[in-house]
Amino acid sequence: MTREHIEYIKDGWFREIHETSFPGQGLELKVEKVLYHSKSVFQDILVFQSATYGNVLVLDGIIQATERDEFAYQEMISHIPLYAHRSPKNVLVVGGGDGGVLREVVKHKCVESATLVEIDETVIKLAKKYLPGMACAFGNEKVQVELQDGFQFLRDVAQTDQRYDIIITDSSDPEGPAGAFFQKEYFQLLHSALNEDGIVIAQASENMWLNLDYICDLVASASSVFAQVEYCYTTVPTYTSGQLGLIVCAKHERTDLKHAVRQPTKSEHSQMRYYNTQMHTASFVLPTWAHHKLHRSRNP
Amino acid sequence: MTREHIEYIKDGWFREIHETSFPGQGLELKVEKVLYHSKSVFQDILVFQSATYGNVLVLDGIIQATERDEFAYQEMISHIPLYAHRSPKNVLVVGGGDGGVLREVVKHKCVESATLVEIDETVIKLAKKYLPGMACAFGNEKVQVELQDGFQFLRDVAQTDQRYDIIITDSSDPEGPAGAFFQKEYFQLLHSALNEDGIVIAQASENMWLNLDYICDLVASASSVFAQVEYCYTTVPTYTSGQLGLIVCAKHERTDLKHAVRQPTKSEHSQMRYYNTQMHTASFVLPTWAHHKLHRSRNP
Repeated sequence: MTREHIEYIKDGWFREIHETSFPGQGLELKVEKVLYHSKSVFQDILVFQSATYGNVLVLDGIIQATERDEFAYQEMISHIPLYAHRSPKNVLVVGGGDGGVLREVVKHKCVESATLVEIDETVIKLAKKYLPGMACAFGNEKVQVELQDGFQFLRDVAQTDQRYDIIITDSSDPEGPAGAFFQKEYFQLLHSALNEDGIVIAQASENMWLNLDYICDLVASASSVFAQVEYCYTTVPTYTSGQLGLIVCAKHERTDLKHAVRQPTKSEHSQMRYYNTQMHTASFVLPTWAHHKLHRSRNP
Repeated sequence: MTREHIEYIKDGWFREIHETSFPGQGLELKVEKVLYHSKSVFQDILVFQSATYGNVLVLDGIIQATERDEFAYQEMISHIPLYAHRSPKNVLVVGGGDGGVLREVVKHKCVESATLVEIDETVIKLAKKYLPGMACAFGNEKVQVELQDGFQFLRDVAQTDQRYDIIITDSSDPEGPAGAFFQKEYFQLLHSALNEDGIVIAQASENMWLNLDYICDLVASASSVFAQVEYCYTTVPTYTSGQLGLIVCAKHERTDLKHAVRQPTKSEHSQMRYYNTQMHTASFVLPTWAHHKLHRSRNP
């Protein structure tokens, strides 16, 4: 999404205000020290040390991750598709240059290869410097990094016989008049880059409290391409309204997205602070109003 | 909790900042118009019309309810204990002068009597004027209102043979050196005011992201009094960190707090926007880190 820029930091507080995406509400974090601020070719990047949430990564004025709560997002967007799959070997991560998703993906012993496609190398470099707890898997032998636009990468993949078991798209999508068309084309590209039992998960950039209409559009687009489309969410205090929505899609009808089909090993479980198999299932349970509206958008 | 006062409204935005309860983070809502602001004998009360969340009630600088999202809180704190009880007839609500909980309680056909104990009549009057969608049940024939301190009311009840099936405590608790003692005495009073199969639910004033230690203390205090103590939560975008914790206690071991033992009737279900029986159960599922820590505090 486009993000209007305002004065980010005022009187020692970072303010996340966005009059288009979430009008009339804002979130603040107290700043101890600005560690980095610049515009890369692709976006405005800010890293600051906060008073109570550790280091914070902000892209175009929107909080992407804080050291204190990032695990809630990284674990859920990674482990929900990975444990819903019987044997994930090849994983593609689109976006996610902070490395948090990669860190989670390589915890799965069965995963043989994890490819990260990130357009902005600056994000990776800054994460290694300021968010080392997230960027700890770039040196892992399973990991390859492609510095490229995710959309173009998927178009290229479609011309090859490379396919993935899991695709995690950890980036927001473009707005504007081409939005609906773009959405459908994007889901089609994701679909064709997956193996037959493949699963894709995409962060919605939104949540049910903020923009359920937009989520319904996304779900409708995805449903025109995938055999199964579900919505779940994770709670993250430093995302606007305290949660982020995730769209999960399966190519095959018999895939059970809402349940873990593999149990985490003892070693895997001991490394997880948010995800557990009960939470996996619970994250798909929605408040009545959102459940009804989403159901209608999937079955118009 | 005591709430330090700062300048609430600045440049047209209400700011919720509290350096003791949630240091280093804040929430903002854009103000269209201040509708009421004063100090009653008991607290500082602000009501304003917000740009995108309807009218907002603020007590001592902390958002209590907005018209847009209040149902998430009112429905969950009311229907979880009510549907976990086979036949709730007498309900006591401590605090909750805005009337939102009462509105939910009287939806249950089996409830014969709902008593609200509120210390501050101003809150009731303001809710009737500015939050009419919440304060709609004061005229219901099942409802009685007692203008009194909740603690004292419970002490008085202990001297009588009046007992309740459900008690909902919709008010925060005092801090300070007497905190731990107070907590235990409060839970003892609640225990003695309940019938043998009674259930009590209390809002924690906190959530697992903000102050899990405090929640563990509350759970430990409650566990020294009640046969069963559980923790669940509801998501509310205008509460700090986007959620609020609820402590649920049963006097009897066999009560199943985590499941609805009655199904909502069609008419009841059609009036609910957040609560459903799946959400009832899902709200008790916690992230791994919080689950482990709470488990230890219940079984030290």
